[in-house]
Amino acid sequence: MPFVKILVTREGVTREQKRQLIKGVTDVITNVLNKDPHLTHIAIEEVDTDNWGYAGEQTSILREQGLTADKK
Amino acid sequence: MPFVKILVTREGVTREQKRQLIKGVTDVITNVLNKDPHLTHIAIEEVDTDNWGYAGEQTSILREQGLTADKK
Amino acid sequence: MPFVKILVTREGVTREQKRQLIKGVTDVITNVLNKDPHLTHIAIEEVDTDNWGYAGEQTSILREQGLTADKK
Amino acid sequence: MPFVKILVTREGVTREQKRQLIKGVTDVITNVLNKDPHLTHIAIEEVDTDNWGYAGEQTSILREQGLTADKK
Amino acid sequence: MPFVKILVTREGVTREQKRQLIKGVTDVITNVLNKDPHLTHIAIEEVDTDNWGYAGEQTSILREQGLTADKK
Amino acid sequence: MPFVKILVTREGVTREQKRQLIKGVTDVITNVLNKDPHLTHIAIEEVDTDNWGYAGEQTSILREQGLTADKK
Repeated sequence: MPFVKILVTREGVTREQKRQLIKGVTDVITNVLNKDPHLTHIAIEEVDTDNWGYAGEQTSILREQGLTADKK
Repeated sequence: MPFVKILVTREGVTREQKRQLIKGVTDVITNVLNKDPHLTHIAIEEVDTDNWGYAGEQTSILREQGLTADKK
Repeated sequence: MPFVKILVTREGVTREQKRQLIKGVTDVITNVLNKDPHLTHIAIEEVDTDNWGYAGEQTSILREQGLTADKK
Repeated sequence: MPFVKILVTREGVTREQKRQLIKGVTDVITNVLNKDPHLTHIAIEEVDTDNWGYAGEQTSILREQGLTADKK
Repeated sequence: MPFVKILVTREGVTREQKRQLIKGVTDVITNVLNKDPHLTHIAIEEVDTDNWGYAGEQTSILREQGLTADKK
Repeated sequence: MPFVKILVTREGVTREQKRQLIKGVTDVITNVLNKDPHLTHIAIEEVDTDNWGYAGEQTSILREQGLTADKK
């Protein structure tokens, strides 16, 4: 009976990306733990960049300074 | 000093329903645990159906397919 | 598809009280929102009194000072 | 590797206040625990006053009745 | 800067399964969202079956009744 | 009516450190937002290093490899 909460910054995550997150994370959890997917719920919470802090600074300010969270 | 977080899909929950959730859940908790209601806080988080996954699929898509979460 | 997280201090909550919390909160939510109970999950998190803060102080210290959270 | 979630009522918290929350809470955590700030993330969740319950009542109703959460 | 919380019942999840959950979920999130894994944190919370409710009943009781969450 | 959840790895956080976290974070929040401390609750969740993932790996394994989260 897993429940998963995914917090990401609200930066244009598309409906299709959300679908892939839900599908992919459910697959990992039900495969690793051998759980019934019908007992697995996932909620994605999108957080404004003003509301997410990293290393003591607002992400919105870090973005203005050119710092991204993109994969290198 | 209980704290309760209620996550529901954002599908037209009314102000009155939220009030009933807050009243009802507080009553259960303070009665079962004999807690002072002034130490009991509740937060309701409404989650877009695009952001809620069930059985590996987006709730918005399940709704389009006719699946509801209504009591049978 | 509601999910509920209940945080309480770890102060001897019995198995029967947990059962009543689960039953009572599920009833409130499924009745108010007309939701299928089979889509309603609840997790109770018990927090050590050293780990719960109220008004800037550890609950374990407040308890030593005679402050309870009991209903008046 | 701390993560902090701050839930507040959505009542006009400014961008600058959010910045101060992020800076201040990160400082406390990294100083008390001697943690690298680059491993410390904070998310602020603003909750509508209709969605926050205190003592069994909606905060929006408590506000209409004149009850504030302001420091005395 | 994603953060993921995974709640599962405490029913013998092994260290290796936790490793696979962490690896698998991080891969999904960083691939779908193109995020730097060094900004992705995951916490697994194991919940006693007495503390997890499903359909209004304690999971520990459901287990005694023979109901599992295993994949069919 | 703020509520704060602090997640840290379970690596010997002392009772006194928890007290300082609670005091310090409450001070920041009540000062920045001008909130009554009696409406501010904090819960600290300690997460086993097997259960915390960073960059796709278990923290317990990262620790074995010599990686710490200490401030540089």
